Amino acid sequence: MTDFAFNLLKEDGHARLGEVHTAHGVIHTPAFMPVGTAATVKAMTTESVAATGAEILLGNTYHLMLRPGAERVGRLGGLHKFMRWDKPILTDSGGFQVMSLAKLRTLSEEGVKFQSHLDGSTHLLTPERSMQIQHLLDADITMSFDECTPFPATPQQAESSMKLSMRWAKRSRDAFVERPGYGLFGIVQGGIYPELRAESVAALREIGFDGYAIGGLAVGEGQDEMFRVLDVTTPLLPKERPRYLMGVGKPGDLVGAVLRGVDMFDCVMPTRSGRTGQGFTRRGPVNIRNARHQDDPRPLDEACQCPACTGYSRAYLHHLFRAEEVLGLMLLTWHNLHYYQDVMRGMRAAIGTGTFTAFAEQFAADQALGDIEPL
Amino acid sequence: MTDFAFNLLKEDGHARLGEVHTAHGVIHTPAFMPVGTAATVKAMTTESVAATGAEILLGNTYHLMLRPGAERVGRLGGLHKFMRWDKPILTDSGGFQVMSLAKLRTLSEEGVKFQSHLDGSTHLLTPERSMQIQHLLDADITMSFDECTPFPATPQQAESSMKLSMRWAKRSRDAFVERPGYGLFGIVQGGIYPELRAESVAALREIGFDGYAIGGLAVGEGQDEMFRVLDVTTPLLPKERPRYLMGVGKPGDLVGAVLRGVDMFDCVMPTRSGRTGQGFTRRGPVNIRNARHQDDPRPLDEACQCPACTGYSRAYLHHLFRAEEVLGLMLLTWHNLHYYQDVMRGMRAAIGTGTFTAFAEQFAADQALGDIEPL
Repeated sequence: MTDFAFNLLKEDGHARLGEVHTAHGVIHTPAFMPVGTAATVKAMTTESVAATGAEILLGNTYHLMLRPGAERVGRLGGLHKFMRWDKPILTDSGGFQVMSLAKLRTLSEEGVKFQSHLDGSTHLLTPERSMQIQHLLDADITMSFDECTPFPATPQQAESSMKLSMRWAKRSRDAFVERPGYGLFGIVQGGIYPELRAESVAALREIGFDGYAIGGLAVGEGQDEMFRVLDVTTPLLPKERPRYLMGVGKPGDLVGAVLRGVDMFDCVMPTRSGRTGQGFTRRGPVNIRNARHQDDPRPLDEACQCPACTGYSRAYLHHLFRAEEVLGLMLLTWHNLHYYQDVMRGMRAAIGTGTFTAFAEQFAADQALGDIEPL
Repeated sequence: MTDFAFNLLKEDGHARLGEVHTAHGVIHTPAFMPVGTAATVKAMTTESVAATGAEILLGNTYHLMLRPGAERVGRLGGLHKFMRWDKPILTDSGGFQVMSLAKLRTLSEEGVKFQSHLDGSTHLLTPERSMQIQHLLDADITMSFDECTPFPATPQQAESSMKLSMRWAKRSRDAFVERPGYGLFGIVQGGIYPELRAESVAALREIGFDGYAIGGLAVGEGQDEMFRVLDVTTPLLPKERPRYLMGVGKPGDLVGAVLRGVDMFDCVMPTRSGRTGQGFTRRGPVNIRNARHQDDPRPLDEACQCPACTGYSRAYLHHLFRAEEVLGLMLLTWHNLHYYQDVMRGMRAAIGTGTFTAFAEQFAADQALGDIEPL
């Protein structure tokens, strides 16, 4: 079995073209990971997800530990087999969602004690238990257990939170069971404070990880602030390891972050927006529920090769959403995931030919055009 | 373009093997038509529906006239193009659903005046308007406008209702625009009364139709009564025309009706049950939400070749329903439609080899086995 490895193939400014090798295959970076919270990318079969070009999924430790349960998934052969996805899987640590979703959370040096939002049962999530759960799930990429520092946070709050995450990172590293093709990522915290980000990077590099995630962003600070943090953080990260910006983002966020040296992303935006009627296109977002689409025979995005755009009219998609038909969610989710992968494909091609700056400018210009004129 | 035609290929007792030729292709009978109420078979792509083996869909005139509107579907190229289904489509007349779903219905000789259940707008549905709507939708098979006699009904009520339907059948025939490959079916009414059924058949045969439907069944009378009505009705129908039992049914209903000379069926049962967690199998129905499935690595029906059964465990399907994930509806709907088509394939093969009686007995014996034992 292959070792877990990152091959940096090419740089174009700060943008990077690479490959992450894992036990379940190769991920071409920059990569976008669709979110499969509860062992399913919502409203998609895994065959359809793969058809969009996705090479890795994200699973949520918090959700899966509560239902169906990590030990159960382990007994059933792991998450790949359970959900029928034979490509790589990254699982988060549970740290973010236990703080945002669970009830009666108590944070201590040991970890987080909480009550399930599903049935009120009491659980303790620690770095060691998070590593164990992610092992049971058979995640190719395991994330260190951390506290996602809220925004806004004072420098003192951000420092204290970051230092706790660094102690948990060390405990995660110690508890992680090394296996060929499986990797552990550390998570940089520090809020919007450059010196704290630098201290966090140094602490993580001292421990040593297979990849480095940038956490605590896309939590309300805005795109400008997020890009400023990236500008001071990614240059400190080791070139020879993949970099993952957690929970990001809109298409323009992805392009801006790749421009700043990020390799990997995850976000619920394409799937969640797809379920509410928002489609992402080359000319910006479109609300398919708008009455202007009800007689429009044109596809959502005529440059898109997804099944929703090659097979159906805006009028039909509009009808499905108005009639609250499941197929509407299915098709628009499919489109959005396909479009996100198109953006990634476009970025990888542009980095490969050393034209990423021009790509980013054209991308922004196209997005600014706005939707096609009504007929 | 081909003429609308029915080829009776073989008889085995009363069971019939045949082909219905339409403008959009051939339907092999006995045939089951999945219901695509609002221009979509709920939670399925049309590619998936076709993959189950379905050769014809049913669309609902009542729903489509209200949303997105028959004229709109017509402008957009018809229902086949709108929903991306290039095989045959049968539309009902709207008569059944206007009485069950609309508000403030007023029935008169002219037709039914009603308020939309969606927005309260007032509409008039007559035999002539029903024909026009079904023409706009581009249905390969148009159904005569009728009143579905409720159950229970006195002989007087059933007679009066049936006679109105026969007058409407004549007006439907007169209003129907003949086109090569397109056909019009009459609908036999008469409740549970043999003499009224006979009178209805005679009236329809006098008018002349491309096929004959048996309406007013599966409305609460029970399987025994339904079979009794079929026993006295199908022998009166012309052999050289297809026979369609409307709104039926459970798998055992289909087998029993084919045994009594029926060729075509439609029912929401496989799709609706699929959305509530009921899967149909060779050993009878299974409620996948039951906790007994939560650790079961076996497929729902090990003899089934559908994606849900070849790719996923009962434990996974159970999890999806417990977590209220859309993929659960998608997979179980897919399975149920595939299973229904398997039943039809099995019946066609058995009639072809003259072994339909044995097939029906084995089918009933398998269903009576009940679900596999827990592990």
